[in-house]
Amino acid sequence: MRIYDIIKKKRDNNELTKEEINFFVEQYSKGEIPDYQASALLMAIYLNKMNKQETVYLTEAMMNSGEVIDLSEIKGIKVDKHSTGGVGDKTTIALAPLVAACKAPVAKMSGRGLGHTGGTLDKLEAIPGFSIEMESDKFVDSVNKHKIAVCGQTASIAVADKKMYALRDVTATVDNISLIAASIMCKKLASGANAILLDVKTGDGAFMKTLDDSFELAKAMVDIGSGMNRETIGMITDMDEPLGFAVGNSLEVIEAIETLKGNGPKDFVHLCETLGAYMLVLAKVAKDYEEGILKIRHAISSGEALDKLKVFIENQGGDKRVIDDYSLLPKASKIVPIKSSKAGYISKIEAEEVGISAMILGAGRETKEDILDLSAGIVLEKKVGDYVREGDILAYMHFNKEEKFESAKERFIRAYSIVEAKVAPRKLIYGVVTKNEIKKF
Amino acid sequence: MRIYDIIKKKRDNNELTKEEINFFVEQYSKGEIPDYQASALLMAIYLNKMNKQETVYLTEAMMNSGEVIDLSEIKGIKVDKHSTGGVGDKTTIALAPLVAACKAPVAKMSGRGLGHTGGTLDKLEAIPGFSIEMESDKFVDSVNKHKIAVCGQTASIAVADKKMYALRDVTATVDNISLIAASIMCKKLASGANAILLDVKTGDGAFMKTLDDSFELAKAMVDIGSGMNRETIGMITDMDEPLGFAVGNSLEVIEAIETLKGNGPKDFVHLCETLGAYMLVLAKVAKDYEEGILKIRHAISSGEALDKLKVFIENQGGDKRVIDDYSLLPKASKIVPIKSSKAGYISKIEAEEVGISAMILGAGRETKEDILDLSAGIVLEKKVGDYVREGDILAYMHFNKEEKFESAKERFIRAYSIVEAKVAPRKLIYGVVTKNEIKKF
Repeated sequence: MRIYDIIKKKRDNNELTKEEINFFVEQYSKGEIPDYQASALLMAIYLNKMNKQETVYLTEAMMNSGEVIDLSEIKGIKVDKHSTGGVGDKTTIALAPLVAACKAPVAKMSGRGLGHTGGTLDKLEAIPGFSIEMESDKFVDSVNKHKIAVCGQTASIAVADKKMYALRDVTATVDNISLIAASIMCKKLASGANAILLDVKTGDGAFMKTLDDSFELAKAMVDIGSGMNRETIGMITDMDEPLGFAVGNSLEVIEAIETLKGNGPKDFVHLCETLGAYMLVLAKVAKDYEEGILKIRHAISSGEALDKLKVFIENQGGDKRVIDDYSLLPKASKIVPIKSSKAGYISKIEAEEVGISAMILGAGRETKEDILDLSAGIVLEKKVGDYVREGDILAYMHFNKEEKFESAKERFIRAYSIVEAKVAPRKLIYGVVTKNEIKKF
Repeated sequence: MRIYDIIKKKRDNNELTKEEINFFVEQYSKGEIPDYQASALLMAIYLNKMNKQETVYLTEAMMNSGEVIDLSEIKGIKVDKHSTGGVGDKTTIALAPLVAACKAPVAKMSGRGLGHTGGTLDKLEAIPGFSIEMESDKFVDSVNKHKIAVCGQTASIAVADKKMYALRDVTATVDNISLIAASIMCKKLASGANAILLDVKTGDGAFMKTLDDSFELAKAMVDIGSGMNRETIGMITDMDEPLGFAVGNSLEVIEAIETLKGNGPKDFVHLCETLGAYMLVLAKVAKDYEEGILKIRHAISSGEALDKLKVFIENQGGDKRVIDDYSLLPKASKIVPIKSSKAGYISKIEAEEVGISAMILGAGRETKEDILDLSAGIVLEKKVGDYVREGDILAYMHFNKEEKFESAKERFIRAYSIVEAKVAPRKLIYGVVTKNEIKKF
């Protein structure tokens, strides 16, 4: 087999076989295929696309390019949740204890963030003492005992994906549905879950900007999961304005805790309930969505989810007192209100701009080497649909680096559109994709 | 300017500007753009194509990536002829003295061959003593004095083309009309000619296998030439069977000499007359095609062309006695007839298979490092349309390496189709492409 012939075949818009895709992924990860041939093939894939079957083969080959975690020692159906990422997405921190409190095992491997704010790991590390490093024995024991553990994704997972993503990043071959879907799914599948719930964000602050693209990505990932015999559900949820009010690591931890205390922002609570219900269904802990919702709500109202969070934090070396004393979390030295310069209804808050201003304040990484300021970020006071008077506070900015404030503020203010006519609050959930069905709400 | 944005633009099927194309070619030749980005762009160009204007910009940028030869010290309009190459293509050796005998200056830079047989330079080197190395002063003086000189193409010409071709060759991005046209034309334009005649071969033994592709390539190259203010004519000529009878370096030299003596094969004479007439028109030595034909025919019948060949050989250090004594040329130790195993009309002689068998015998290079056997090759006795009886000689194989004979013979015989019904000889010239017109014959 020669890589030249594989490039030519895809260039001529023909379907690649499992053997050809395996050959490419294996030889490329080993360094036997040079970058310049890989990038030519990736551009041919980008432009001529891959079909469902090719995408499954690609994902499987990428999954097999590194370690494949075996979670069979953990009792029950392990459901993993993956979000394509957005601004203010602290979902895992609330959702994991919620689902675990309902007795579904949560054995989650998470990544760090590059972009607006940190990833789940960065956010958890805002909790003093919390460690995301865990031997696999302890990981398995923790889930069996407490139903919950979150650790860092090992570097030995899906080795080809890392190498290929770096190449795609510099050759304009990132935004292809098959390549994105395979890249996400190969890591999820290598992490050992039995079932997968995908939260595909859509809108301005998401990777997928349009609803059509988001449904397409969800469908592609559900097809991959199904093609590899993992029950997979994809949800399409709004990321046109930030999720909840808090954007920034420590600030988002507080919002997640408040949510488990029953005081969460309406949109975020709704998202956690819905995702949680589907996870319980996938884990076969609830017989249907309606029962799932009831269980999740009960876990909040009974305080069981908050208790589970305490156990979770303690088990991973964190200071569980943060739950009742937020002053133990990293705290910014400056908290400055941002006021509205006009009156009207908020018709838009560009999530991406909010994310970038939080990043400027220190909440996110622009390059892998950047060190996060876990205390920095933004807490919104108003969301789309709200009425503001001139001088009303739109948000508070939390930061330590005074010199960053002005440019962050400028971008933040640009994110707002305020109009005269009344505006409806944004819809949160646009649809659900399963193996056999695409439901649009 | 960033190469990433240029890749993305072409990926999204947008037109690149002159500045963007220049940036790519300049930075790539300097090594500032890595191969993996260049190959992604080349694949995007391959699949989304370049328009006429982009192709002209690319050619110009590639021309400017190396030395641009100034032939202004040579009097008259310098017409260059370029063939896309084929099996038995010894045209330059006959055509250059023919045109020079008609007083049009021939200042030709040629390349070596990779493939079936050697290039023009290899063929000329079959003449004992003949040197293709020449200082530019002597080159200019020779053309001014004798109207003819042929030298090797300097390595400093069109530097980007060499680098880019090597990359295209391993990334399946060779067969794109714009890229092929730019690669050929940048070298022709850098060689300093005022006008260009293109002989685009079509058929089994040519780079372009179909008539449509051949016309398209001719049109693309004529557009480039015109776009850069060089009068350019493209001819589409047959390469479905070998040109003339001889295939192999020394053997082709003999056939070219015979042609100037008035004993050339019908198809080859027809090609030389036609190309020659157009070259005289481009050089403004003939007022039209008809006058051109008469002049060329006269140059043969008067012996002036043969005299010019003598002068040409002598001027470049060669032994002009070869013209009357072919035994001075490299001679194979074995000459073996190949006989027909059946009777009938020859309906096809696959040029590529004939070329490959000549290469196996030693006439061509498979890799750049191969050393040619200048004496080896094949002389056909029959062409398409001829009738053969069982046992009639189809061709003679000339070779020194006994061990290569069987596999060469096997391929050679496979090249023939012999049928019962009468077959017409092949057409030689399919059309002419000028700036404003595509004429199909």
